[in-house]
Amino acid sequence: MDERVREHAELLVDWSARIEAGDDVVVSVAEDAHDLGVAVVEALGERGANATTLYGSAEVSRAYLKGAEAGADGDGGDGVPAFDDDPAVERALFEAADAYLRIGGGRNTTATADVSSATRQAYATARRDAREARMDTDWVSTVHPTRSLAQQAGMAYEEYREFVYDAVLRDWEALADEMAAMKDALDAGEEVRIVTERDGAPDTDVSMSIAGRTAVNSAASVAYDSHNLPSGEVFTAPVDTEGEAFFDVPMTIDATRVRDVHLVFEDGEVVDFSAGAGEDALASVLDTDAGARRLGELGIGMNRGIDRFTDSILFDEKMGDTVHLAVGRAYDACLPEGDSGNDSAVHVDMISDVSERSRLEIDGEVVQRNGTFRWEEGFEG
Amino acid sequence: MDERVREHAELLVDWSARIEAGDDVVVSVAEDAHDLGVAVVEALGERGANATTLYGSAEVSRAYLKGAEAGADGDGGDGVPAFDDDPAVERALFEAADAYLRIGGGRNTTATADVSSATRQAYATARRDAREARMDTDWVSTVHPTRSLAQQAGMAYEEYREFVYDAVLRDWEALADEMAAMKDALDAGEEVRIVTERDGAPDTDVSMSIAGRTAVNSAASVAYDSHNLPSGEVFTAPVDTEGEAFFDVPMTIDATRVRDVHLVFEDGEVVDFSAGAGEDALASVLDTDAGARRLGELGIGMNRGIDRFTDSILFDEKMGDTVHLAVGRAYDACLPEGDSGNDSAVHVDMISDVSERSRLEIDGEVVQRNGTFRWEEGFEG
Repeated sequence: MDERVREHAELLVDWSARIEAGDDVVVSVAEDAHDLGVAVVEALGERGANATTLYGSAEVSRAYLKGAEAGADGDGGDGVPAFDDDPAVERALFEAADAYLRIGGGRNTTATADVSSATRQAYATARRDAREARMDTDWVSTVHPTRSLAQQAGMAYEEYREFVYDAVLRDWEALADEMAAMKDALDAGEEVRIVTERDGAPDTDVSMSIAGRTAVNSAASVAYDSHNLPSGEVFTAPVDTEGEAFFDVPMTIDATRVRDVHLVFEDGEVVDFSAGAGEDALASVLDTDAGARRLGELGIGMNRGIDRFTDSILFDEKMGDTVHLAVGRAYDACLPEGDSGNDSAVHVDMISDVSERSRLEIDGEVVQRNGTFRWEEGFEG
Repeated sequence: MDERVREHAELLVDWSARIEAGDDVVVSVAEDAHDLGVAVVEALGERGANATTLYGSAEVSRAYLKGAEAGADGDGGDGVPAFDDDPAVERALFEAADAYLRIGGGRNTTATADVSSATRQAYATARRDAREARMDTDWVSTVHPTRSLAQQAGMAYEEYREFVYDAVLRDWEALADEMAAMKDALDAGEEVRIVTERDGAPDTDVSMSIAGRTAVNSAASVAYDSHNLPSGEVFTAPVDTEGEAFFDVPMTIDATRVRDVHLVFEDGEVVDFSAGAGEDALASVLDTDAGARRLGELGIGMNRGIDRFTDSILFDEKMGDTVHLAVGRAYDACLPEGDSGNDSAVHVDMISDVSERSRLEIDGEVVQRNGTFRWEEGFEG
């Protein structure tokens, strides 16, 4: 086994999930993530934790949803299945778990492309409680580098493996120290404004309140309220968004390629939207529920070990010189005690490149201009 | 997808496990059993059942046990891990499940060969309650034909696939009718005696009580208290075994090849044993616990669709013209109400070819001679 697979596994178990003896851990292993799954479960055995391993196959998920569609058709319904909103096994599983380690890495990133949006939405809505139980664990999401992810990134396999390990096998403690300055600025602030100027495309000028919210220094560890490996972003949960935002980094929503998303906010809600490609997929997300039209997250990418977009939100949103906004669910860690925040069955991130002709202001003061933070060399206030 | 994979899946879901809408089903998918896993989960979706899919990888199991051994070494222990005997997730998972569908088909049938017997035993003993919870569900075990199973059988891949589908895709209702005569004979009887005579090898002459026990007509469906697909055997739970038994069909115990097992019983217990190969693995099984030295099962193979030994207990023990005895755990379905039967962490089947120079008697009356049952043409009483 490549020694980097073992290092990745130990980072996930020890740094990210902080697993200790006696912990009950659920591991989900995608089809081609076998090697990392083996290394992770070996580390869990060594730590004295219990491990239950799920098969996180997108083809299995698709089969379930397509089967349910066929069953719903047979019932003379409209083809949208009525899913059980209290699946006993799934709920019991995650309620009993201390930690959930999701290891992505399937064989085909568009494996669920032919499942209808209505079916996806019905499933996501029905499984909300099970998802809540899962997110109440110390969950961490990572990926094993696979050929299909390399293909999605437009890269050779070996090249992609280097990319992944450059992003993952970092000195996370040192990066956490760098990110603390950004968290401090957001925690002290009340309003964030993001402005980007570009030729021949809609500009961004969007403002939002962050008063009373707590930013997360997302250093790839549950000890930092951070649930992705790699990570390297600082994020919070904004409200009362006003203005227009343009997202120039392409993304994939439900196996549909979506480009050049433009959102218009009034009183905190998306009141108008467009996309250069994949507008139906975007519309479907925004129509999921009331919370899907409000922001759940503002994130600032600070991992400069990630040097290119690879059409994977796990990496793209962490890249240095980017900011992202997510419609949908807010993370509890950002919310004041007793505030439930924006609730939704979805959480979809959208990314802007802010390396040029951009600024991010907190309470009217520029904190980042053209990608450079005010505490960095070369910053032009 | 090969249409036979879909037929296999529908047989498993409908005939074997009797899945209905709303059932909570746990599916375990081995590494190379992906295609059958997909077909099964699709059928579950179509039936309106809930599905949770486990990754049944022997390499993952090995990694956990090897990791635990390494952790135990680090603790300055004797290298045998102290496993948690109440793993919360595993217990909750199976307690919440209505059915458990195990789809075997790994990449290497000796994937756990380097795990010590002491570690296996410690794990099996610790996980007894979780296993009980699993066996309290409507569980069914089957396999997807893989190259590694073909190799274990000494067959070409395509040849092996034909073999599997010949054994699995049968008219189970018709076979159940044939097997009913054997069940009736066992249910009415009090003592079974098996005699085999062979040159140059120990003979079998073993007797056991079956008074008050109920035989299972194992027709590959939970509706018949039968939990294997394929099946095709009639089995019961004997006690008070006396005599000697020789098993000429080779088997694999914990990745060790075991041949020519000879057991000597007194007062229901194995008091002496030998094996032509793999005697240590046999000893390890018999030393697991007190119940491992007593019989849990007498089974009579009646599936003549299985025409050769393939070193897989799922198929071998069902083959026509064979009988098998298992040391260890008895199945509840065979026991009188309120009788807990022989209890053990293990259940290991051992098979004799009875096609020649053999007889099976019930209460002194010959029921099968040289493989032919008394209700069949050519029977020589």
